[in-house]
Amino acid sequence: MRSIARSLGLGSAAMALTALTALAWPGTADAAPTGTESVYAPSALVLAVTAGEDPGYGTALRAVTLSCSPAPRGTHPSPATACAELRAHADRLDALAEPLPNVDCTREWNPMTVTADGVWQGRRISYSYTFANPCAMRHSSGTLFDF
Amino acid sequence: MRSIARSLGLGSAAMALTALTALAWPGTADAAPTGTESVYAPSALVLAVTAGEDPGYGTALRAVTLSCSPAPRGTHPSPATACAELRAHADRLDALAEPLPNVDCTREWNPMTVTADGVWQGRRISYSYTFANPCAMRHSSGTLFDF
Repeated sequence: MRSIARSLGLGSAAMALTALTALAWPGTADAAPTGTESVYAPSALVLAVTAGEDPGYGTALRAVTLSCSPAPRGTHPSPATACAELRAHADRLDALAEPLPNVDCTREWNPMTVTADGVWQGRRISYSYTFANPCAMRHSSGTLFDF
Repeated sequence: MRSIARSLGLGSAAMALTALTALAWPGTADAAPTGTESVYAPSALVLAVTAGEDPGYGTALRAVTLSCSPAPRGTHPSPATACAELRAHADRLDALAEPLPNVDCTREWNPMTVTADGVWQGRRISYSYTFANPCAMRHSSGTLFDF
């Protein structure tokens, strides 16, 4: 199933995100004390699934948190894998929505939209991707939106 | 110190948020299994602090996650208090940015912007508030942006 629509709003962060995959990734040091600046640029996201094409007008069915710095954690069921995918594909999250091979979904229009909002490597990010139907969403290649 | 600027983008959620304080709040039931719809509308936010007036062009200094449903948790240092503030002031988060009494801050212009992005009671939320300087931010009335 092909993707139907996407939007990516990164402010001035697009170029910074493009360069992210070349950056070394921090290890698993403890979190910085509250109220102080960490040596790591913060990465904290809310990932949500909303029925319909426009997440601004629908009700989110599910939403999870994901922190990737200094260590992966959050209510996302697979924080480590999701953070690894973000590091690898931050410049093009659409890569995580590509269909898995050998899976045939029906083609009806029953759209589901996934969103990612928050901060990635210190830059504000707002991303959305609309699948044609729930089957296409369930059988996409990434773990980031699998919750 | 008076507030300088704010923006609030809620899509169609403004009316729903206005009514939130009248809703009963869920207890501390276990989280729903992954991939199923919870009986609770999801509430998950990323809260960030950015130097400057425009969080879209600045680098976030700090960012934390906050989930309020089914139970308060996240990397926010005081999830329970922050969620209680959200429940009480979801229709006007500016109330959490009011200055504490008996605190005098200098008046220089060194703006700091706090943001809240994600999902509140199933509705997408994007909120920002700009303080005149770090002193005004530190001595505001709410706990939500105290991290």
